[in-house]
Amino acid sequence: MQSVKQGALPKGFEWGAVKAGIKASGNLDLAMAVATKPATGAAMFTKNRVVAAPVTVGRRHLAATGGRVRAVLVNAGNANCATGQPGIDACVATCAAAAEAIGCIFDEVFPSSTGIIGVPFPGDKVKAAMPALQAAMGSTNEHAELFAQAILTTDTRMKVARAVVDVDGVETRIWGAAKGAGMIHPQLATTAPPHATMLVYLFTDLEAESGQLLALLERAVERSFNCISIDGDTSTNDTVLLLASGASGVKLNSRVREPFENALKLVCGSLAHQIVDDGEGVKHVVTLHVTGAQTEAEAKQVARAIAHSPLCKTAWSSADPNWGRLIAAAGYSGVEFDPAGTRISIGAVPVFELGVRAVEFDEARAHAVMTEREYTITIDLGVGEAECRFLTCDLTEEYVRINADYST
Amino acid sequence: MQSVKQGALPKGFEWGAVKAGIKASGNLDLAMAVATKPATGAAMFTKNRVVAAPVTVGRRHLAATGGRVRAVLVNAGNANCATGQPGIDACVATCAAAAEAIGCIFDEVFPSSTGIIGVPFPGDKVKAAMPALQAAMGSTNEHAELFAQAILTTDTRMKVARAVVDVDGVETRIWGAAKGAGMIHPQLATTAPPHATMLVYLFTDLEAESGQLLALLERAVERSFNCISIDGDTSTNDTVLLLASGASGVKLNSRVREPFENALKLVCGSLAHQIVDDGEGVKHVVTLHVTGAQTEAEAKQVARAIAHSPLCKTAWSSADPNWGRLIAAAGYSGVEFDPAGTRISIGAVPVFELGVRAVEFDEARAHAVMTEREYTITIDLGVGEAECRFLTCDLTEEYVRINADYST
Repeated sequence: MQSVKQGALPKGFEWGAVKAGIKASGNLDLAMAVATKPATGAAMFTKNRVVAAPVTVGRRHLAATGGRVRAVLVNAGNANCATGQPGIDACVATCAAAAEAIGCIFDEVFPSSTGIIGVPFPGDKVKAAMPALQAAMGSTNEHAELFAQAILTTDTRMKVARAVVDVDGVETRIWGAAKGAGMIHPQLATTAPPHATMLVYLFTDLEAESGQLLALLERAVERSFNCISIDGDTSTNDTVLLLASGASGVKLNSRVREPFENALKLVCGSLAHQIVDDGEGVKHVVTLHVTGAQTEAEAKQVARAIAHSPLCKTAWSSADPNWGRLIAAAGYSGVEFDPAGTRISIGAVPVFELGVRAVEFDEARAHAVMTEREYTITIDLGVGEAECRFLTCDLTEEYVRINADYST
Repeated sequence: MQSVKQGALPKGFEWGAVKAGIKASGNLDLAMAVATKPATGAAMFTKNRVVAAPVTVGRRHLAATGGRVRAVLVNAGNANCATGQPGIDACVATCAAAAEAIGCIFDEVFPSSTGIIGVPFPGDKVKAAMPALQAAMGSTNEHAELFAQAILTTDTRMKVARAVVDVDGVETRIWGAAKGAGMIHPQLATTAPPHATMLVYLFTDLEAESGQLLALLERAVERSFNCISIDGDTSTNDTVLLLASGASGVKLNSRVREPFENALKLVCGSLAHQIVDDGEGVKHVVTLHVTGAQTEAEAKQVARAIAHSPLCKTAWSSADPNWGRLIAAAGYSGVEFDPAGTRISIGAVPVFELGVRAVEFDEARAHAVMTEREYTITIDLGVGEAECRFLTCDLTEEYVRINADYST
């Protein structure tokens, strides 16, 4: 995966961002992406029953236009969640303001918000910033990076990824930007209510219909964003949007499908990894590779129990090879397995097998693996052929400090 | 609830404890309770699929004797879990040593262990300490307190509770001792595998059959120990044992049942509260009172989602009335409800209603409530009549420090 600077962006889009005064820090907080000609879009939203206004409005707009999108309007600093009908009205009003500026109808604008829940949404600030935002739009890497910067909240760095697919000498490009940091345990679906803190925008110049994009997106999300967890808190605003401008002239067909899908999965995988790597207070990134499960769903269930166990996560923070906590968490996951048939390794060091501490268990070696920034824990349940790779992180005092920070 | 010192203990039991050298600290770590004549017993164990040796053996012994128990043998410092057949053998050998000392058969001894997982069990230390332990037994409050002290691990204080039921001028007594501190999210059942860190021993001089005791215990546990969580980690050794000596001469019948059951619930409720209050790093004890649910199970499901949310728990640690995290956690609990019909209060301060911040929301007042050591958060889902009270606590930097503490 190359940085946004290395290589060209997908054609047919412009990006930009301004300071609208929504973030208390005064940083960039309002971003827009505009498709030069109407693009096709597909989105997935959080399964949380509590729904932010932009998620309600975004779903409604995609449904109304049949997936036609001219612009994405994102603010950071206020989630516009639990803000009632005034929140919905303010969201629609900002879409209308963007539509007027661009010259499209209001439901061709897809809105997103991230930030604090339950604070009235400052729609007027968004509207007031619209002329400056329009003036800031452009199609260079710098413009795209402004977009990627403005959507961040507690993130410490920009998250972008890109890929290029070459079909008979014609390039199709994908570029994505994401934000994460906390309240990260996406459970994305194409149906059901929404509201979220993970936001992902994927742009491509492929030509495809909305339904085709959705099928591609669902498969890419299932093994990337739906396989990560920082703190187990599923947000009320999680949104992943895939927009296709068609400007490459390459149409999605049976020859293009496989290389494009692989490229999309690479971009989603990279962004998902960047989100965990920049999670709040994270010192270690841990891949849970659960193998030998009866189904992929059960493999994920075991991975989630471990990924949400404060005892496992605190042990990782101090590189403590306390494998008892791993097998205990697997044990309460609800998945049926026999500990006597289960094997656990930390990196390449066997720690548990045949129901007891592995004969080759070497505490110093396991500890050494865990001092690395990133490593893999393998849990072989020994009951089937299914597996999953789930990306998570340690729980540190800094995570507690960040989220307990409160001053009236 | 009075302290162990205020009032008499149930008749027909002796307690004692010694230092057997299992805890690295050198503190009391081996405890025994002996019934002068065979007592009847009923137990509930964790639902974790990973099982400590003493849980396997304890279940087997209760089944073999039909619930007849002469002694409870508990060690702290080593969980005897993930120790394989050698762990089972060592556990049985310690029961045999206790049986020989007392003069009973080995399966009348009920074993328990708590401490680190996966370290070979030092059964020889237990056997070597048996003469000293036998010499330490007695029926005074001081003896009972030694028992309650020896079973502790990271607990900072002893947890005991008592109650007396008066039937026609004859007293029936209940006394219980518990340990908790970490890996506390009991999911107790009468069937299914075991292995645990919450240990609870309830002694009474009522006369009752094992099956009667089990029915009483299940109802008392459901709304006490099964309604608490410190960190969401369900241990591999959780055990609650109720022993009845019959020495009061009062037989369980339709007149005695209700006052006795109420007394048992009081004792269990007090011990459950003490466990959360002494949880690792706990600064605030929070009762989640979920009302207006369609079923009690759904009320618990919402409470558990909030009780396991790191974002809710860190906000409590700083007395931050961030109700957005509460409604977000309820939203991903999997329970169906309409946010517009949901009401949330912190203490008596309304914070959320009609889908938005409550009109009477007063941040300073809500913050003031949350600076108390203990308070209640009420979540009215507005969809039914069922409710639950779930006891939990905040997540602090100290919790992370305690569980990340590791030095090779």
